[in-house]
Amino acid sequence: MPPTPSPTSDFRERVRASLAKQHFMTTLGVRLVRVEPGEVELSMPFDARLTQQHGYLHAGALASVLDSACGYAAYTLMPEDAGVLSVEFKLDLLAPAEGDTFVARARVVKPGRTITVTRAEGFMQRAGTERLVATLGGTMMCLRDRGVAG
Amino acid sequence: MPPTPSPTSDFRERVRASLAKQHFMTTLGVRLVRVEPGEVELSMPFDARLTQQHGYLHAGALASVLDSACGYAAYTLMPEDAGVLSVEFKLDLLAPAEGDTFVARARVVKPGRTITVTRAEGFMQRAGTERLVATLGGTMMCLRDRGVAG
Amino acid sequence: MPPTPSPTSDFRERVRASLAKQHFMTTLGVRLVRVEPGEVELSMPFDARLTQQHGYLHAGALASVLDSACGYAAYTLMPEDAGVLSVEFKLDLLAPAEGDTFVARARVVKPGRTITVTRAEGFMQRAGTERLVATLGGTMMCLRDRGVAG
Amino acid sequence: MPPTPSPTSDFRERVRASLAKQHFMTTLGVRLVRVEPGEVELSMPFDARLTQQHGYLHAGALASVLDSACGYAAYTLMPEDAGVLSVEFKLDLLAPAEGDTFVARARVVKPGRTITVTRAEGFMQRAGTERLVATLGGTMMCLRDRGVAG
Repeated sequence: MPPTPSPTSDFRERVRASLAKQHFMTTLGVRLVRVEPGEVELSMPFDARLTQQHGYLHAGALASVLDSACGYAAYTLMPEDAGVLSVEFKLDLLAPAEGDTFVARARVVKPGRTITVTRAEGFMQRAGTERLVATLGGTMMCLRDRGVAG
Repeated sequence: MPPTPSPTSDFRERVRASLAKQHFMTTLGVRLVRVEPGEVELSMPFDARLTQQHGYLHAGALASVLDSACGYAAYTLMPEDAGVLSVEFKLDLLAPAEGDTFVARARVVKPGRTITVTRAEGFMQRAGTERLVATLGGTMMCLRDRGVAG
Repeated sequence: MPPTPSPTSDFRERVRASLAKQHFMTTLGVRLVRVEPGEVELSMPFDARLTQQHGYLHAGALASVLDSACGYAAYTLMPEDAGVLSVEFKLDLLAPAEGDTFVARARVVKPGRTITVTRAEGFMQRAGTERLVATLGGTMMCLRDRGVAG
Repeated sequence: MPPTPSPTSDFRERVRASLAKQHFMTTLGVRLVRVEPGEVELSMPFDARLTQQHGYLHAGALASVLDSACGYAAYTLMPEDAGVLSVEFKLDLLAPAEGDTFVARARVVKPGRTITVTRAEGFMQRAGTERLVATLGGTMMCLRDRGVAG
């Protein structure tokens, strides 16, 4: 396989800075837990403002956090002047999202010059246990020379 | 093809009541525009609280509205005691979501006793024009005898 | 929206030539029915060699034809020196694939310099009627300067 | 999580018998490598009859094997009188499928009474090495009382 691209030296800071500009993540109460080359973990506390009709976290709220985690996992391996964009994603719902905190763990499956394939798992944590409630696969695009970065 | 199931007489009221319980839709500022048998339209005003790092609506916010629209399109054709649940969905992003209002138009592609396949298009409206920015395909499940309705 | 790219003058011949090199389409008995800018229709006769355990056409056989139709729909709008590649696709199965002939009708939803989003519907024809049995959404990539064309 | 359902005592024989009825798998030259509760591995030798225009295995051929592997992984956990059906699947293509043998390894991510979520990885083997070339996520349905088994 082609060698995995190296992250820039300040990839953690670049993820942090871009995430801070995603107002929607602030609205959802999302926090950055961990950034490594090709990996990002985000968390979101359960909040009644984010629920669907049965009282669980709404599938779209889960998708939002998982998508951002995937985008930033890809972004850690992109060049300095690049912006990252979601092309498409697919969410699978495995169990009702109830508990204290939702955690999204994303990683790069296949990096590429233009297209990066990513995958994330979403867990609900409660009382020291966690349960897999959703998975998301996302195709991310590296944008250059289009006046966007981050 | 098997005949399309008939909606219950109060399907509009049932959608309205269930949507009112989706606190996340309230958080997003979503409004119910139209309900017909197998079809639902929702709208969401552009709001800086819902944006990603380049200032467009976050893909997850779009997915949330499109998913709810698909779920309720399916729900219009389900029996009275049923609850509706998203099994999976796939979002395609076609253009940056900028403008005044996001509109999600969902319809049932194939109704079923257990599984209903749905599809939605998402448009950004501005100054009397609209532009297709995202599409979502979702698999919805009809839950019965599990103590949930709506 | 950006203007849709113009097809090259010989786009029909280019599709025909590339399809002739897809030995798998020959193995499946696939025939080119129609090519227009951004649209391709392929057909495949029902054949017991292509069935799954209940006697219907296998989902993978349907996916194969729908994917090729989508790829060539995208290819009609690509520059002369380009090659087309599937990045990902999603298949939804709506009804058992039984009948005389399977027909795949693909079109470009959103063309792009690098990424083209496509969509196809698959019908089973029998005795003058047709029934929608599957849909496929595919993300296609335009490859240039990599020594591939077609 | 709910306990994983137990396979029937003859689950290997049931998979083998159903796969033998999938004529399309015979057409593709597919062989059953391994069956465990919730897991199935299939292999397919490279064959020029299965290629796309650049000489690699066609995405649809890969999807066919991965889908069957996922379906049978789900089937190992289904009751004796059940039939298995693909509801939808999503294929991601990671690298050109060239080499000697394609191997599909599928497993159940989340079993369910009606819906089982599965995932498979597809590798190309050559000269003792293997490379991940595709992944597939599939939603499988358990059919009962509809006159189908297998």
